[in-house]
Amino acid sequence: MSAKRKIFGWGFEGEGFTAEEERLALATYARLFGVDSFDEKHVPGLGEIALPASRVSPPAGLAEICSTSPHDRALHSFGKSYPDTVRGMLGDYEAAPDLVAYPREEADIGRVIAWAGGIPATITPFGGGSSVVGGVEPALGRGGAKAAVTLDLSRMDQLLEVDPVSRAGRFAGGIFGPALEAALRPHGLTLRHFPQSFAHSTLGGWIATRSAGHYASLRTHIDDFVESLRVVTPRGTLETRRLPGSGAGPSPDRLFIGSEGTLGVISEAWVRLTPRPRFRAGSSVWFADFFAAARAVRAIIQAGIFPANCRILDPDEARNTGAGDGSAALMVLGFEGWDGPLDDPHARALAVAADHGGHPEPETEGPSAAEKWRTAFIRMPYARERMVPRAIIADTFETAITWERFETLHEAVTKATLAAIREATGRPGQITCRFTHVYPDGPAPYFSFHALGRHGTLLEQWRTIKKAAGEALIAAGGTITHHHAVGRDHRPWYDRQRPDLFGDVLRAAKAALDPGGLFNPGVLVDP
Amino acid sequence: MSAKRKIFGWGFEGEGFTAEEERLALATYARLFGVDSFDEKHVPGLGEIALPASRVSPPAGLAEICSTSPHDRALHSFGKSYPDTVRGMLGDYEAAPDLVAYPREEADIGRVIAWAGGIPATITPFGGGSSVVGGVEPALGRGGAKAAVTLDLSRMDQLLEVDPVSRAGRFAGGIFGPALEAALRPHGLTLRHFPQSFAHSTLGGWIATRSAGHYASLRTHIDDFVESLRVVTPRGTLETRRLPGSGAGPSPDRLFIGSEGTLGVISEAWVRLTPRPRFRAGSSVWFADFFAAARAVRAIIQAGIFPANCRILDPDEARNTGAGDGSAALMVLGFEGWDGPLDDPHARALAVAADHGGHPEPETEGPSAAEKWRTAFIRMPYARERMVPRAIIADTFETAITWERFETLHEAVTKATLAAIREATGRPGQITCRFTHVYPDGPAPYFSFHALGRHGTLLEQWRTIKKAAGEALIAAGGTITHHHAVGRDHRPWYDRQRPDLFGDVLRAAKAALDPGGLFNPGVLVDP
Repeated sequence: MSAKRKIFGWGFEGEGFTAEEERLALATYARLFGVDSFDEKHVPGLGEIALPASRVSPPAGLAEICSTSPHDRALHSFGKSYPDTVRGMLGDYEAAPDLVAYPREEADIGRVIAWAGGIPATITPFGGGSSVVGGVEPALGRGGAKAAVTLDLSRMDQLLEVDPVSRAGRFAGGIFGPALEAALRPHGLTLRHFPQSFAHSTLGGWIATRSAGHYASLRTHIDDFVESLRVVTPRGTLETRRLPGSGAGPSPDRLFIGSEGTLGVISEAWVRLTPRPRFRAGSSVWFADFFAAARAVRAIIQAGIFPANCRILDPDEARNTGAGDGSAALMVLGFEGWDGPLDDPHARALAVAADHGGHPEPETEGPSAAEKWRTAFIRMPYARERMVPRAIIADTFETAITWERFETLHEAVTKATLAAIREATGRPGQITCRFTHVYPDGPAPYFSFHALGRHGTLLEQWRTIKKAAGEALIAAGGTITHHHAVGRDHRPWYDRQRPDLFGDVLRAAKAALDPGGLFNPGVLVDP
Repeated sequence: MSAKRKIFGWGFEGEGFTAEEERLALATYARLFGVDSFDEKHVPGLGEIALPASRVSPPAGLAEICSTSPHDRALHSFGKSYPDTVRGMLGDYEAAPDLVAYPREEADIGRVIAWAGGIPATITPFGGGSSVVGGVEPALGRGGAKAAVTLDLSRMDQLLEVDPVSRAGRFAGGIFGPALEAALRPHGLTLRHFPQSFAHSTLGGWIATRSAGHYASLRTHIDDFVESLRVVTPRGTLETRRLPGSGAGPSPDRLFIGSEGTLGVISEAWVRLTPRPRFRAGSSVWFADFFAAARAVRAIIQAGIFPANCRILDPDEARNTGAGDGSAALMVLGFEGWDGPLDDPHARALAVAADHGGHPEPETEGPSAAEKWRTAFIRMPYARERMVPRAIIADTFETAITWERFETLHEAVTKATLAAIREATGRPGQITCRFTHVYPDGPAPYFSFHALGRHGTLLEQWRTIKKAAGEALIAAGGTITHHHAVGRDHRPWYDRQRPDLFGDVLRAAKAALDPGGLFNPGVLVDP
């Protein structure tokens, strides 16, 4: 691919917010915070960045797949989280790896592991680098005794095999979303896994972080798409058996799904595919009250109706994304199928929504509320690089909770986050909520918060808010992450969520596969 | 419960084959093997069994929950597999545990672990004892340096909590299927997990062995029902968080699901419930050819139609169970729902079946073919105790395989098993096949075989057949078990199926949780 990924910001060079999108976002924030203008900082370009000197050089046999160029090292310094963007704005590239290796095949990974083990260096697997939780940063490399090597899988990006009978495909782990879907299109098949980061993340990254796709119900977590895996570890390569189901001992796949690069590199995966959908149906449904919408979602999913999409947005979230005026909550309801028309489940879902006071949007000429929200959702990641230089603190976090505790969790998290915004910034901010995924036993609520910070203390202010939100989530019984993963940012709360004895098991698994502790030390468990 | 479980055979004392069922089964076998009568052995009663002397006695504090009575020790000597039944017939109770403990609460489990660790003794968790793979036998206890303690969970059998909002229930691990459903009935809820062993197995046992329920598609493995677990290990008790979904590291639940008692005891579980179904629809559909029926199943499940039941039986299996005359394959098609009528998916599935040459059975007065098969299926486990004393070798095994390899696997397994029957017994036998579960990427084929053996060498003959079948399954790419678990019987093939490095991980996990190696040594991995 010829497009170059941005060092600072989301996506490729040349992409980003349009002037109009930026104007609208700033106008919304100016109204929210009651200010006329923002204190905008200059963001340094590559030529202005001071990278720490690289401490290693590749051996002759690996030179052609390794780079210590400032561009490559800067690009792999961190992911796309709020603090990552602040550091980019500040020109703080202390986290840069000493070297980036681009394996072309599995054997290259083995060679890099062997070499890195001898230096010694840590190894950080890197897919698309879209982590919003500090998941791709070689944080413990610099300043420690070990050098830091990042293993960028983007050259291992092939569709290797399609099985049209069982509807499954084997891919190299470094394939990006668009390339994966493009390779499947001639076969009439699709993985149908569309996380928001789809264009900028890889299959191996999705599996390593337990990503959840755009679809709201049934198969949504990548966990359920994985049929088998190949993983390269310092002790060798392992491959699990391709099976539609099994009862043979604990699932080996499930150990690596969510392992976040701590046990090795996912070099290949067989994943379950479906035909491309031929029928679509959907509605935008309005509710006077967010909790009424939540109860409607529960009723739909517990009635055994499984919409492809069943998101709800609170009134502020609907307004912030241009989908509404802030007076009502929005349900984005969608159905897909490849076998026959979808009127029946769609009609059933609308009837359930009506029982909870939901009103479908009348047909109009322009884009529906659901379409407006969808556009905003896809464009949202581009905002960060334009808002951070203006000291705006805008971030999101997600959780999952059983239905009977949802309203309590929502209240506690909202209160704690708003209080922390006021404490950290000295002025009120905003927190909004939507559902991204729903299960018969509970929703995955997704929160966005907005605050106006001060240059010079943005990271501290962000940490104060993040900490309050994390504490409230864990205290209310939620998970610290539903699909963003743990990374380095969520470790304090993951440690409280994870049973201690399971932490011992993860450490033991790591010692068994990575006895030298090369891979991502400090992620998930302490070395 | 007042009914007493049989020491020899399936279920409770007083239950079993009726004289008519026995007459029919024997007539079928006489025809199959071309014999007039069978060489019937006497089966010893409890008074005739020579149990090895118990090597331990419980300390005062544990005496009231422990038993060394011959009845209790004999009852816990093994499960319900073919070789178990042969040993029962031969009066071979060498595998008997030295002592059986019946904990009433979690603290009792901890006390037993502490005491057993000091003897030292191995601990074998025991739910309903319905294992058909050597999963509840303390095989390494006797003859080794350690005594053998069996931990029978049947007194920990309570519904502890119901959450009607999120539709989940918390149960003690020792609750049996009927008690679990009875406790849920007043709440209008059901777990809807009905393995064939339902009446004689426990929730904790289902989870430890990755059981699969009666329903054919979507949620069928217990894996997907588990919301959270409590597990008592020698290092302490751990509890996972109750969540509808999570992306926080590798799933801790999935480590214990399928751990077969090697990491500790599942003392409690939160499981996902549904309302009791209010609508049912179903058909018996006939196909001239088993593979045409298999292709119809694939087309139905890949069309996104998920029947509650979508089993197929080959012509011999249909005849053996009284559902057909042996000339055609049968599809047992069923739908359930609680929200609205089911005609649409049912009609769609019938249309797909028709595309593959399937003919629905016309309405008749008596029981349908599907009903006849269902009755035979439920009664089948009672056959073993009546057939083994007549030297009949009848057993079943199951696997899962992706669709594109199903027909090849079927041919290889059928040929290898028939050849082994002839080699082992010197005469032809029979192997039949049905589907028990189906997935979009493959079926779970279930094989039954029938041979006439000779008293005196039944176990060797069974082993010859079992080995040939296991080798063929693994060579053809299948799993050694879809829902019967690994136990001791499947270890040789599980070892080849399981990646070696994952074996290292399981050993490391065991060392982390059970450093003294108390729990089920030799199950899943070597000590």
